[in-house]
Amino acid sequence: MCAGRTASLPQVSFPRRPPDGLPVVGMVGAGQLARMTHQAAIGLGLSLRLLADSADDGAALVAADVVVGDHRSYDDLAAFAAGCDVVTFDHEHVPSRHLSALAAAGVAVRPGPSALRFAQDKTAMRERLAGVAPVPAWGSVEDAADGRLGWPVVAKAVRGGYDGRGVWEVEDAAALGRLRTATAGVALYAEERVALRRELAAVVARRPSGQVCAWPVVETVQREGICLEVLAPAPGLLAGVADRATGLATRIATELGVVGVLAVELFERPDGELLVNELAMRPHNSAHWTIEGARTSQFEQHLRAVLDWPLGETTPTAPAAAMANLLGGTDPAVAVRLPAVLRDDPGIRVHLYGKSPRPGRKLGHVTALGADPAEVRDRARRAVAVLRGDQ
Amino acid sequence: MCAGRTASLPQVSFPRRPPDGLPVVGMVGAGQLARMTHQAAIGLGLSLRLLADSADDGAALVAADVVVGDHRSYDDLAAFAAGCDVVTFDHEHVPSRHLSALAAAGVAVRPGPSALRFAQDKTAMRERLAGVAPVPAWGSVEDAADGRLGWPVVAKAVRGGYDGRGVWEVEDAAALGRLRTATAGVALYAEERVALRRELAAVVARRPSGQVCAWPVVETVQREGICLEVLAPAPGLLAGVADRATGLATRIATELGVVGVLAVELFERPDGELLVNELAMRPHNSAHWTIEGARTSQFEQHLRAVLDWPLGETTPTAPAAAMANLLGGTDPAVAVRLPAVLRDDPGIRVHLYGKSPRPGRKLGHVTALGADPAEVRDRARRAVAVLRGDQ
Repeated sequence: MCAGRTASLPQVSFPRRPPDGLPVVGMVGAGQLARMTHQAAIGLGLSLRLLADSADDGAALVAADVVVGDHRSYDDLAAFAAGCDVVTFDHEHVPSRHLSALAAAGVAVRPGPSALRFAQDKTAMRERLAGVAPVPAWGSVEDAADGRLGWPVVAKAVRGGYDGRGVWEVEDAAALGRLRTATAGVALYAEERVALRRELAAVVARRPSGQVCAWPVVETVQREGICLEVLAPAPGLLAGVADRATGLATRIATELGVVGVLAVELFERPDGELLVNELAMRPHNSAHWTIEGARTSQFEQHLRAVLDWPLGETTPTAPAAAMANLLGGTDPAVAVRLPAVLRDDPGIRVHLYGKSPRPGRKLGHVTALGADPAEVRDRARRAVAVLRGDQ
Repeated sequence: MCAGRTASLPQVSFPRRPPDGLPVVGMVGAGQLARMTHQAAIGLGLSLRLLADSADDGAALVAADVVVGDHRSYDDLAAFAAGCDVVTFDHEHVPSRHLSALAAAGVAVRPGPSALRFAQDKTAMRERLAGVAPVPAWGSVEDAADGRLGWPVVAKAVRGGYDGRGVWEVEDAAALGRLRTATAGVALYAEERVALRRELAAVVARRPSGQVCAWPVVETVQREGICLEVLAPAPGLLAGVADRATGLATRIATELGVVGVLAVELFERPDGELLVNELAMRPHNSAHWTIEGARTSQFEQHLRAVLDWPLGETTPTAPAAAMANLLGGTDPAVAVRLPAVLRDDPGIRVHLYGKSPRPGRKLGHVTALGADPAEVRDRARRAVAVLRGDQ
């Protein structure tokens, strides 16, 4: 049955503004962050408008009001913004000069260009954080080549890196030379390779009027620069370290004038010292657990923040939460295995992003909630292994 | 700013099937139940396809794949079903003969016509429940006119009544005669007016393969037949009564072959005896609290059930939940007051349905979670009062 579709009924046309006068939030980008933000927007009665790269983007599959355009084109951005009360972002790839021009033209760009540049440009961020928050020792690649950061170092692309892309571990000066040749044309900088106990993330949201709310500090487990798991709250975190992490994120949000969600990725050194690694000014993988694990999710909070609405409670809904990312494996038949995961663990929360499976691609995530950190981590891992077809 | 929209970017076209082979669930009707089901579908990676009466329907404002058609037309239903793997419902108004014809044509109609007729026809339901579950004494209007049900009685429309419509309290034979004249052409029946302590609801979900899962039994507070509040779990409910209520709902779901969510509205007599009042075979207002208040919401569970996927845990996420419906008041400016509600109670969960405000219309609901039943009820009431502009 039901082999094809029929065109005999009229497909409704878009955009349609809801009748009750609620604002239209525009989001540039239509990946999984926009997809999950759309879920939150529906609850608040809002209409999320998306600027998608392609009609196949994860959020474009499920949202009503989607236009396709180029986020690197000022004309496309301006045309998109004309239909929105507020414009926010699912990624950091909009050119700074366009953001500034939009803001100058009166568009409510949130977070604003003067904050966003510190999520876009890693050296600008490190300069700006001087006196605000500690960062690893860093310098130009020339500084590193001269041995001023010691060896090994980590070389990073100044702009555009994420999920392990744009990051290279470099053992010595010869290797750095080879990297510079291989990445000719890419602006790089270098920083010390930090001896670390683990990675943490402190995630907060800030309104233009200044209110800041923080979720509990989490541990993020990475492999080759890609987040595999998030443990909330970070197991065994000393209260003093948690307070410092939250304090750092709150200070950064306030000093930089961030609006919306700010995720601060942190290195925790063996002695408990914290160093800022990266900033993201949008909903972030390290807080996906908040969908079920906190009274207010990061997606709803981001919407409330960019609208300058009062922020919601961030209280956890369970003592422990674990999120595991579903990265594509060699077998693409993820959907076929979903019922098996739901059967094996009736409490597991699955989120699929509507993407075509490809090895290594983030296709979704799962969240487990419970009383015991080890038990929820194990459940999340098992669910992802089943979805991937690993077992 | 942003007074108008621009047509310079291409609006994406629908329908677009997600690439990963997950099924397409079709829902007939695009009101708030479909709207909240769409939120749940997004999480599971699904594509919900809607047959809307109008492009202004609450779910049509936020879902990607919406066609407009007449749910009373077999041709429209068949055309709609051709694009779906499973067809389910946001209301009970599809004619039984069309449901049977669709099923005969091979469409996976869930719940199926042989179950749905008991949610559509109140006398058929009462006849069918004989030996399955207790119902109030009932009979034809002629029986009632002859005094066989005593006085007063409650007269009800056999089909189509909801939210207090199609229900009349009748004091005596003369009033019954006047009602019959006033409702000429409407099939009526009559039942005893039950002396009751309160109304309860037992909500379960059932898969075709037989698995049934129940949420805790709730108290529903009605005014003039419209649900105002739902208290979960029902305060002060004796364990024996709760077990009987859940047992009744499970038995009805199984005996009638219901697939999807079944809400059983119950009268609790002062002695604890339970009588079945109404059945609904779809997500139901008495379980909106499950969105945040239970590990698996009724909307996700309905999708899992109609797809014959394993059902999710129904464990509550807090000791007490209260849901209050937002019924339109005299002041339509609900949206303007949303920030005030969020400020007054950062933990309140607001759901707006995208409807134009009208007095008495269900525009949304709020849910409060916490430790104390009285406190959460008070919070939910206050939030609704602020949204309505009552205070």
